[in-house]
Amino acid sequence: MPKRVDHQAQRARIADALMRVAAHQGLEGVSLRHVAAEAGVSTGMVQHYFRTKDEMMVFALDMVGRSVQARLAAAAPDGVPAPRELVRALLVQMLPLDEERAAESRVALAFFAHAAVRPHVAAELRENTVVLRAFFADQIRTAGRASDPDLAATALLALVDGLGVHVVGGHYSPEHALAVLDAHLDTVFGPRVQV
Amino acid sequence: MPKRVDHQAQRARIADALMRVAAHQGLEGVSLRHVAAEAGVSTGMVQHYFRTKDEMMVFALDMVGRSVQARLAAAAPDGVPAPRELVRALLVQMLPLDEERAAESRVALAFFAHAAVRPHVAAELRENTVVLRAFFADQIRTAGRASDPDLAATALLALVDGLGVHVVGGHYSPEHALAVLDAHLDTVFGPRVQV
Repeated sequence: MPKRVDHQAQRARIADALMRVAAHQGLEGVSLRHVAAEAGVSTGMVQHYFRTKDEMMVFALDMVGRSVQARLAAAAPDGVPAPRELVRALLVQMLPLDEERAAESRVALAFFAHAAVRPHVAAELRENTVVLRAFFADQIRTAGRASDPDLAATALLALVDGLGVHVVGGHYSPEHALAVLDAHLDTVFGPRVQV
Repeated sequence: MPKRVDHQAQRARIADALMRVAAHQGLEGVSLRHVAAEAGVSTGMVQHYFRTKDEMMVFALDMVGRSVQARLAAAAPDGVPAPRELVRALLVQMLPLDEERAAESRVALAFFAHAAVRPHVAAELRENTVVLRAFFADQIRTAGRASDPDLAATALLALVDGLGVHVVGGHYSPEHALAVLDAHLDTVFGPRVQV
């Protein structure tokens, strides 16, 4: 009986290798050859799952997105959280506050740079942020303090992405970035309620 | 008499080629070979001026910085501008609002991604932002509205870098980014005075 190949596991193995390469060597390290070496498989095997580097990049970004969503589901406050609490819980998962999230931020940053000169790749990323911006705008609208919830939502996402870029560049600490986020949330949702 | 080589002009020519390659093809396009081809010189000539890719990247980012400063000097309001006016004039020059600034933003983004996995390169970038953050914090302190000028200054720079990343990624228009910046400046400096 021929050996059954577990395609899902094989793909996940290659994807994990891709994430490690992108996180530690940046965009330039993401090549069929490097990813194959990291995964301990042939370049032909990698090509079987990902035909192009763009496909690898999109898949890696998707993995980051799933990972963020999984952490969010685990971290979600019980019951129906207040808008600020919910928005903050989500944004905190997007900041490079620990090594796992720093690796993801480096992957996301490599992807932003990659997509900035490849409009067809950028489309994938745009869809994610449209959904996210609409969600944030709804929460901000519910809180009822911002004069323009859509602008406020764009600002929140840009702020968090900018903070992420600066933290992985070593400009300041994750703690400073978190303090900046909390101060910004005060202006959007009003001062925190002390409990 | 031997022909005199104008080193400054030669370096500038290569640097211009480097900028064009980085802006249009991204980080991956920046190689000795591509830059030499774009400048119409030999790879040996490029190596004479830039020993490594890191040196080229740092030089390119420095050129972006000089270009922003030159535009700022030209755009600076007459007399002693109010803090908001001064801060806005500077930030607007950092946003990808036209093709020149979009090209610079793509170079800066490529550099951020490059530096995120190379701590020794990141140091160069950090110095710039430390100076800029301190300047913004001073202006915000002078305006006297923010409870923590240092956090507010970090937020401003992160917001503008994040908006730049999103605009060059085609997530939204430069006009939307500018509207977000103005709304944010309202929260930092108070509502605009209508004249």
